[in-house]
Amino acid sequence: MSEALPVVAILGGTGELGTGLARRWVQAGYQVIIGSRTADKAEMAADSLRATMDERGIDSVNVSAMENLEAATAADICAMTVPFAHHSSTLEHVRSALVGKILIDVTVPLVPPKVARVQLPAEGSAGQIAQQLLGDEVMVVSAFQNVAAHHLQEGHGLSCDVIVCGNKKVARTEVISLVEAAGMRGFHGGSIANSAATEALTSVLIFINKQYGCHAGISITGVDDEA
Amino acid sequence: MSEALPVVAILGGTGELGTGLARRWVQAGYQVIIGSRTADKAEMAADSLRATMDERGIDSVNVSAMENLEAATAADICAMTVPFAHHSSTLEHVRSALVGKILIDVTVPLVPPKVARVQLPAEGSAGQIAQQLLGDEVMVVSAFQNVAAHHLQEGHGLSCDVIVCGNKKVARTEVISLVEAAGMRGFHGGSIANSAATEALTSVLIFINKQYGCHAGISITGVDDEA
Repeated sequence: MSEALPVVAILGGTGELGTGLARRWVQAGYQVIIGSRTADKAEMAADSLRATMDERGIDSVNVSAMENLEAATAADICAMTVPFAHHSSTLEHVRSALVGKILIDVTVPLVPPKVARVQLPAEGSAGQIAQQLLGDEVMVVSAFQNVAAHHLQEGHGLSCDVIVCGNKKVARTEVISLVEAAGMRGFHGGSIANSAATEALTSVLIFINKQYGCHAGISITGVDDEA
Repeated sequence: MSEALPVVAILGGTGELGTGLARRWVQAGYQVIIGSRTADKAEMAADSLRATMDERGIDSVNVSAMENLEAATAADICAMTVPFAHHSSTLEHVRSALVGKILIDVTVPLVPPKVARVQLPAEGSAGQIAQQLLGDEVMVVSAFQNVAAHHLQEGHGLSCDVIVCGNKKVARTEVISLVEAAGMRGFHGGSIANSAATEALTSVLIFINKQYGCHAGISITGVDDEA
């Protein structure tokens, strides 16, 4: 493990998406803090993560468990994987700890029960809501909405790209490093307003999954093969 | 040319995207009508299309040119490739001719000058605007927003998938046939509300094109490789 790698917290990190990202980043040598509403719940996820890494024959696993605000305070970069219903309340809870940091917002504004139907919020996107709520002192970067959690849980490579949106290029670049550490290609996707595209696309992918019986993702084509 | 293939009109079909689709469909043996605000303008595009097919050594090209309303009347299926600024007015002009037919809406609600920024309309998407304006007697299907016109113009294969959104599965299926005729894979993407995703994605792709110097598209991953 390199001392140079940032410490990454995954707030609300006990679900399938959060634990999937944790597996990828821990395996890449990052120090990961799993955050949850209670430290106990986070600790259970951390135990499970250690067991998975043990099964994969990976030692020197650097994972800890904390309550969300403590996790955000201790981390250099925070990712947040909570349901949309808890998006604003979780942000309010941790916002003081995010000042000067990058928040990777993975939230998709799904409106149950019609999760296969695009229903973007009036503000435009969950990413925009986060940036407005947190203010300019926090660099909100939207990413990972179109990755099947199913595939993140696996140990092998992923055939899925990640579109990374945020108002600061330096922050997007840092998140693209984390995308690559997780085994995928990351692309600069423009300002945080553009997270509307990736958030909306998740409902389309849910529809495709139902229609075709799969765990679909997206890939960007035409980037490498031309001048 | 098979008698069974539907006659396809491309309304506002003189731009790069419309002529690109025309090339693909004519080459696949479809009878194509190029529509424009004046028959003269449409005729120029048709002449250019015939010349391109001649260069490619393709004879028995079935293309004609008409004013938009005449084109819509004469066609079995209409595609529309107009700038968003002319979206509603063109629909109003041709709506009487669309009753009982499929309209393939290719419109992206770009708001110049910031075309690389997602700015979806309050109604949700251009596709939804079209469906509301035309009513249930017209089957609006949204498609082709994420295909680089640059690549459509070429004669060879395309590494880009098309997400097809619309409220009627039978209409989406017919459009998927046209996607395949144009050399791409088409996927059922859900209801017309889901066109918000593909329309928003166009601005992201414009950003990626600027950032990486390319003509990007998207591909759906994870569909073929699993149960």
